[in-house]
Amino acid sequence: MDYFVHPTAIVDTQDIGKGTKIWAFCHIMDGVSIGDSCNIGDNTFMESGVAVGSNVTIKNGNMLWEGVTLEDGVFVGPGVFFTNDRHPRSPRLPEASHRYQDHSWLSPTLVKQGAAIGAGAVILPGITVGEFATIGAGAVVTKDVRPCAVVAGNPARQKGWVCRCGLPLTFAGGCSRCHCGRKYSLQNETVQIV
Amino acid sequence: MDYFVHPTAIVDTQDIGKGTKIWAFCHIMDGVSIGDSCNIGDNTFMESGVAVGSNVTIKNGNMLWEGVTLEDGVFVGPGVFFTNDRHPRSPRLPEASHRYQDHSWLSPTLVKQGAAIGAGAVILPGITVGEFATIGAGAVVTKDVRPCAVVAGNPARQKGWVCRCGLPLTFAGGCSRCHCGRKYSLQNETVQIV
Amino acid sequence: MDYFVHPTAIVDTQDIGKGTKIWAFCHIMDGVSIGDSCNIGDNTFMESGVAVGSNVTIKNGNMLWEGVTLEDGVFVGPGVFFTNDRHPRSPRLPEASHRYQDHSWLSPTLVKQGAAIGAGAVILPGITVGEFATIGAGAVVTKDVRPCAVVAGNPARQKGWVCRCGLPLTFAGGCSRCHCGRKYSLQNETVQIV
Repeated sequence: MDYFVHPTAIVDTQDIGKGTKIWAFCHIMDGVSIGDSCNIGDNTFMESGVAVGSNVTIKNGNMLWEGVTLEDGVFVGPGVFFTNDRHPRSPRLPEASHRYQDHSWLSPTLVKQGAAIGAGAVILPGITVGEFATIGAGAVVTKDVRPCAVVAGNPARQKGWVCRCGLPLTFAGGCSRCHCGRKYSLQNETVQIV
Repeated sequence: MDYFVHPTAIVDTQDIGKGTKIWAFCHIMDGVSIGDSCNIGDNTFMESGVAVGSNVTIKNGNMLWEGVTLEDGVFVGPGVFFTNDRHPRSPRLPEASHRYQDHSWLSPTLVKQGAAIGAGAVILPGITVGEFATIGAGAVVTKDVRPCAVVAGNPARQKGWVCRCGLPLTFAGGCSRCHCGRKYSLQNETVQIV
Repeated sequence: MDYFVHPTAIVDTQDIGKGTKIWAFCHIMDGVSIGDSCNIGDNTFMESGVAVGSNVTIKNGNMLWEGVTLEDGVFVGPGVFFTNDRHPRSPRLPEASHRYQDHSWLSPTLVKQGAAIGAGAVILPGITVGEFATIGAGAVVTKDVRPCAVVAGNPARQKGWVCRCGLPLTFAGGCSRCHCGRKYSLQNETVQIV
């Protein structure tokens, strides 16, 4: 075993990559896959069917439900709320139990490489967060987020753009250069590295 | 004992119904009552005085404080925030300790049968959530919610109506028929099954 | 040892004052300091570098990161979201790792004496919450909060003023008297006790 599991954590999968660390009071179910060199904070829960790439940082208190996929290099801040049911009801409620006979109620979530999600943000069911986007803390995301976009608020609105490194981008004449040296063009609401 | 308690959970009450399951790292205090066939996710805390009906689904990371009552068939999404103090202060603060000599600071919460509360929603003190209502993920609920209403936003506003089964209802001429077969009338902002 | 630690809690610091209680499934790292007579609810995490005063009440499910300071008598409701990075990225992401070579990414949070933060509120990086202020449940705080101010919403806006005891203040002619007997003046958006 070339990954670390804190003695208080419950880890039922063995599909975990090299160098990954899983901290106190986590509960990772069977049928979860996690890549290399991830850091998974205290009190994080992952349900069967979750897939996490490599170099992912998951802060404490996260709950990843069936249908959630995090690509490489994603950051999940503390206590982010993922969801997977557009029309929630207790499956034990007689008036609703017929809706939970199969998995047609499930809407997946995809967070693409390098994106970051701020503390306590809520991701509604069926959302894709684009590559290197940033979701502000406390945002309630109700529609897909463009690559390199920054969104915030409830419901979340786009507030600007960010570099792959995470710093804000300011465009003048359709061009921007980050402190880190990367250059971008902006055309038709699409940012591209140049 | 005809209910299940995960070995890592701390359960101090015995007032728990048949078939109920209490999962990892939960802490259920003495003086809590829980009905039959409930499912209570990891990391859930219930304080003395909480009452939970039957067929209730409580997802992970919930905290139910004194004064919270959940009727039969309720769904509580992950990490919902219940509250019970309109004017919070540390009871240990000398300037405020006189306000915590008795329980006059406590405002209760009632979630009526079949209602569903989305992930990370906040329920302000003193609120009643009507039968079969749905609270959107991330909503901040500042006033009572009508039966079968859907609310969302911060502060939460009514966005529409839902069937007892959880699916959205569209009214034409004061009438609506759900895919599940139930029929409703809408009059004076009140939905009734017909 | 004149403080209490629940047997399931992990406490790596000894810098804890007399009469403080630390409840189930907490994780308090080395390098944290906590004053006297505090109450720290279940599932609370504190990272190295956190400083907590005396008479502080921290409800369940809180996560206090490096850079967070709570002065005496503060109330932290359930599941408050503190933050410390304005431009979050996974430090393991190759495109961003250079930004995490030193601590220049860190923006601290200061909550001054007697303030109260409602359930599920989000405190953006770099914020100071003034003495005896109240943050409403579910608020997303994006700028500093004045002493004795009440803020709510996303983003949080000022809604009024509160007494040191936590009750709302109504000003007439620049003066207000609380039920608790304290008197205040309001001038230039500043409340002072008189």
